[in-house]
Amino acid sequence: MLKEYKLSQWKDLKINGRTTDCLEPLTLFWTASGFEVNVKAAELWVEIEADYEAMEPWFSVLVNGAPIARQMAMKGRNRICLFRGRNPEEVKHVKFVKDTQAMHDDEVCCLQIHALFTDGEFYPVKEHPHKLEFIGDSITSGEGIFGARKELDWVSACFSGVHNYAVMTAEKLDADLRICSQSGWGLFASWDGRLDHVLPDIYEKVCGVLTGEHNRMLGALEDYDFTRWQPDAVIINLGTNDSVAFANEGFTHERWEFEEAGVAFLKKVRHHNPKAAIVWVYGMLDNEMNISIVRAIDAYCRQTGDQKVSYLELPAITSETVGCREHPGVKHHRLAAEVLSAYLQKII
Amino acid sequence: MLKEYKLSQWKDLKINGRTTDCLEPLTLFWTASGFEVNVKAAELWVEIEADYEAMEPWFSVLVNGAPIARQMAMKGRNRICLFRGRNPEEVKHVKFVKDTQAMHDDEVCCLQIHALFTDGEFYPVKEHPHKLEFIGDSITSGEGIFGARKELDWVSACFSGVHNYAVMTAEKLDADLRICSQSGWGLFASWDGRLDHVLPDIYEKVCGVLTGEHNRMLGALEDYDFTRWQPDAVIINLGTNDSVAFANEGFTHERWEFEEAGVAFLKKVRHHNPKAAIVWVYGMLDNEMNISIVRAIDAYCRQTGDQKVSYLELPAITSETVGCREHPGVKHHRLAAEVLSAYLQKII
Amino acid sequence: MLKEYKLSQWKDLKINGRTTDCLEPLTLFWTASGFEVNVKAAELWVEIEADYEAMEPWFSVLVNGAPIARQMAMKGRNRICLFRGRNPEEVKHVKFVKDTQAMHDDEVCCLQIHALFTDGEFYPVKEHPHKLEFIGDSITSGEGIFGARKELDWVSACFSGVHNYAVMTAEKLDADLRICSQSGWGLFASWDGRLDHVLPDIYEKVCGVLTGEHNRMLGALEDYDFTRWQPDAVIINLGTNDSVAFANEGFTHERWEFEEAGVAFLKKVRHHNPKAAIVWVYGMLDNEMNISIVRAIDAYCRQTGDQKVSYLELPAITSETVGCREHPGVKHHRLAAEVLSAYLQKII
Amino acid sequence: MLKEYKLSQWKDLKINGRTTDCLEPLTLFWTASGFEVNVKAAELWVEIEADYEAMEPWFSVLVNGAPIARQMAMKGRNRICLFRGRNPEEVKHVKFVKDTQAMHDDEVCCLQIHALFTDGEFYPVKEHPHKLEFIGDSITSGEGIFGARKELDWVSACFSGVHNYAVMTAEKLDADLRICSQSGWGLFASWDGRLDHVLPDIYEKVCGVLTGEHNRMLGALEDYDFTRWQPDAVIINLGTNDSVAFANEGFTHERWEFEEAGVAFLKKVRHHNPKAAIVWVYGMLDNEMNISIVRAIDAYCRQTGDQKVSYLELPAITSETVGCREHPGVKHHRLAAEVLSAYLQKII
Repeated sequence: MLKEYKLSQWKDLKINGRTTDCLEPLTLFWTASGFEVNVKAAELWVEIEADYEAMEPWFSVLVNGAPIARQMAMKGRNRICLFRGRNPEEVKHVKFVKDTQAMHDDEVCCLQIHALFTDGEFYPVKEHPHKLEFIGDSITSGEGIFGARKELDWVSACFSGVHNYAVMTAEKLDADLRICSQSGWGLFASWDGRLDHVLPDIYEKVCGVLTGEHNRMLGALEDYDFTRWQPDAVIINLGTNDSVAFANEGFTHERWEFEEAGVAFLKKVRHHNPKAAIVWVYGMLDNEMNISIVRAIDAYCRQTGDQKVSYLELPAITSETVGCREHPGVKHHRLAAEVLSAYLQKII
Repeated sequence: MLKEYKLSQWKDLKINGRTTDCLEPLTLFWTASGFEVNVKAAELWVEIEADYEAMEPWFSVLVNGAPIARQMAMKGRNRICLFRGRNPEEVKHVKFVKDTQAMHDDEVCCLQIHALFTDGEFYPVKEHPHKLEFIGDSITSGEGIFGARKELDWVSACFSGVHNYAVMTAEKLDADLRICSQSGWGLFASWDGRLDHVLPDIYEKVCGVLTGEHNRMLGALEDYDFTRWQPDAVIINLGTNDSVAFANEGFTHERWEFEEAGVAFLKKVRHHNPKAAIVWVYGMLDNEMNISIVRAIDAYCRQTGDQKVSYLELPAITSETVGCREHPGVKHHRLAAEVLSAYLQKII
Repeated sequence: MLKEYKLSQWKDLKINGRTTDCLEPLTLFWTASGFEVNVKAAELWVEIEADYEAMEPWFSVLVNGAPIARQMAMKGRNRICLFRGRNPEEVKHVKFVKDTQAMHDDEVCCLQIHALFTDGEFYPVKEHPHKLEFIGDSITSGEGIFGARKELDWVSACFSGVHNYAVMTAEKLDADLRICSQSGWGLFASWDGRLDHVLPDIYEKVCGVLTGEHNRMLGALEDYDFTRWQPDAVIINLGTNDSVAFANEGFTHERWEFEEAGVAFLKKVRHHNPKAAIVWVYGMLDNEMNISIVRAIDAYCRQTGDQKVSYLELPAITSETVGCREHPGVKHHRLAAEVLSAYLQKII
Repeated sequence: MLKEYKLSQWKDLKINGRTTDCLEPLTLFWTASGFEVNVKAAELWVEIEADYEAMEPWFSVLVNGAPIARQMAMKGRNRICLFRGRNPEEVKHVKFVKDTQAMHDDEVCCLQIHALFTDGEFYPVKEHPHKLEFIGDSITSGEGIFGARKELDWVSACFSGVHNYAVMTAEKLDADLRICSQSGWGLFASWDGRLDHVLPDIYEKVCGVLTGEHNRMLGALEDYDFTRWQPDAVIINLGTNDSVAFANEGFTHERWEFEEAGVAFLKKVRHHNPKAAIVWVYGMLDNEMNISIVRAIDAYCRQTGDQKVSYLELPAITSETVGCREHPGVKHHRLAAEVLSAYLQKII
């Protein structure tokens, strides 16, 4: 017999990704957010609730570390089987992962967890010895990992919170992970030149890219309490959309404005993460902004004396490693994770 | 607005896998069975119906050749989104693939297709210039492709009709594909020594591994009409479970019985596929039976003068290429497909 | 100061490959023959002597397992530097490897070792716990490993005794290795249909493929003393050239003759290697003879009751793995070594 | 019969690498320098002359693009076989490549080409449509490509002018190549803190890293005539040894001095290469200097208005890609070449 476990009853539940304290239900906002359980059981189900207008949520299920399922979340409340028919005497590790990013463009888009159902019992999930926070754009949202190379449509189905360089980096470093990322947004300007579609503006909220009354009620716009989850490293992967903005003739801003925004954002990140190594990574799609980024880092370090901020350039996609929507494919995320994790291993 | 298309109305539908003529609904029996459509639309859904007691069906969705979703089929009738939010002016190729094999052990297990729903219109799907039929066991059923290496539980979730050497071989040869396979079954005996759990006994039925009244009503046990789909090559991948049976002390049969069964089965396969190259492949898990298999082929060729039957040994898994349940993993299926497709290219 | 060490003075010298007892000089006959030393020194040289008319010898030098040099042996007596300028306090392992096969076509072709020169001292070289003997043709001679894919000229430069599946297999199994192989030769017939160019005829001599008075004087044609080096496994890789012979219309022999020759050769190999596993491998270029080979093995086992003889088919080259002269390239030798070593690990 | 061709007689000879006009003999100074010929012949030899005290020269031979031989150059004048026994009716492309760098530490070290000997005739060698110049340190000298991972001795044998990212990049871009590089040297300071062991000081000479009367007589210290070989891109890979210098407590210079040196060197490089894209690459071993490098580039561009100078960071070695002497191995050179060539393809 399956028994229902409300979230407030869950023992040994581990929640990934920035979210609120609300557990009935738990809202999953960001890429690679979700939960993990260890359960000794033959069967495990989860009740989820989803909604969307334009951009439906997708999720993946990993059992003992292996991706088993990946699917779209249907509107409404549904039970999803995480595993069944298994040896009831063995503990299974299950990870539920949101593949899609927080969807700025769709006020209604939502993915929530209500309850687990099992015939067994839960065991503690280990905390990893390290913590990493990633702040990024479509690259960090894993856009383009799924889908045929020729695809250009901007759809939920192309995102991945699993085969993603940030996730792979965390695995290699044995680290827990939080991602704040939004396709098209930048450090100073978004790809289409908007100065209000930038990560620094929303970094201090639980999930500030979201809009609308429903998301406000869910707590997305509340202040995020940085003190409760202090990362060993904050990885900023921004600049790619700014590069597109600056390449547009109609965009009349100047590079020093980007650099000032960079300095200001580094101050903000440092303020909330006093002990973290801060690494600005860049280059997976282009590297046109690298001088401006380094100038921002340099200016920040000179102003503050901070010595724990560095720049790491990542390899650009090639015709061998590109995925769909002209974004990095799985091969390229794997390469970026190798380069980044080797670097982080030296500094944390 | 989405418009419903009953199966009998579907134009340009392509059905993969042995099945009956019934289209309302279409029943998917075998590994890698399913359907393909080309549709110029923003959105496409399918209504499926599933049931199971022990072994639930799983399926995958490929859009323009790329795997996008893979999930368990829930009991009852459900609509599944195949894509949405796409450019309505472009034709998308969609392939719906049953990942799980026909489940001998579960009389109730069933996966059916009722209707498609789209806001666009359908276009013809190309027939590939070649046709391949595979007859096999768990290896050909893709058992062990999904799941962590350490998994030993025999569950539906570990099967794949996508990352499967038979499917990859068909892609490399630009061929349509039908698979008849059953985990644990053999040519002369099953892994547990049963002489009635053998592929030759059911080869002439639509899906003779199935049991029970419901499957009988669905047409699984009817004669299969070979004349309507004549493959260029029939690939037999049997012997692995016979090997397990013969290794069991309690199994008192002798090798010549296996060889006789082999000769008889080759005659049956040739009878129904008069023009096909017949290739007996073997070796992905062990090669203990290779001498007996070659003796069977040799005896058959001498008796009949048939010159289009050959033996090809495939590489065995290593610690690098094993998947879950000590079966071939994706890497090994890819290797086997390279070896087999290079061979088939020379003979068809 | 470098000091000369005559061979009879050499301590801790390890000789690879079938050869005679003569150490002044030591003659290297076969593919992958050579010597190994451990030496604590800054510098090490070897004096070699070579001759040829048509087919010059090539050799490679490995230091601490890494290939460092590969070059043609010039006519006459020459000193070759194996390493210099190194830390005199560290022991280096040096392996000198003959890349070219024994050259049936060139009576004059010869490679000999006269002396070592060093400023340091020698240390023992470990015996590997296993021993493997390979009997083969051009594939086992490593023909086609070096050279551009388009090359068709039959030249010494295309051979390798290093990037060779037999050598890689021995490394994976931690085994010492002896190779008897000759391009173009077969089990029953050579590629051009000669019945006297077959490995069984020369297997019992030190290096029976060689001809001429000089080679006779060097001891090539003397009986080989099997008792002094008993392999754990004998790997026969023959059949590829027989296949070419049988495909020729003018070749009027029949398959049963090949099979009888196979039975006879297995008896001979078993006679000299009473405890070895015998594995007949085949398939790297084609597999047309596999039924005949298996029939030979089967007949031999039935006649003798021998249970330690088996057949293993190796993958055939593809356009991705072919080397020069339409022979296996390095990638393919690596694949074959993976398949073969995984198999041997199970039986020895 | 072989016929001797003096260099002044050679038709259709192509010389790679900076050198003097002297052709009797031709002196090879730099990594990857050498010559190329197309020859329709059965046989081709070269007469070389070499000398050394500490650091012997090494060279490689490629036939039709495939590496065939790699060996140490012996002291004195010797004939080396480039190929023999080949089809006399086919044109072979032969490339002779110096594997070792110009050896600052060994005044006597020298490699020269005197003559070719062939039984055939020469044909023109194509000029590639692009030209690349690399300026670097041990990384660009290919140090550590050959040799076991554990090796630490600084010896000639560990260098490669073939499996080198600069060479691979040139191949991918269909470009001719010149390399100026020296192990241990830097932009502003060498690894051991010497300000006179820097590439900018010697960039304007034919081979200014060399010392001694013999090299002076050979023309190494003469002005290099940039006008006769104008590259499409100059790739500067410097900073790694400066990083070591700055990490040493005893080194009292400041980062702004490095930056000023960088600005000055960029001016010098631009002066001599008015149309080239200039790319400063860095990161294969560490990236500690990246901010200083970017500051130098930025300052240079602001001072001069030059817009064709950019920074590209290359991935750092990992435990998977390291070679010997803790330098990049072949795998890493291959990766760096992929990243760099993809970048260069966008800008030239």
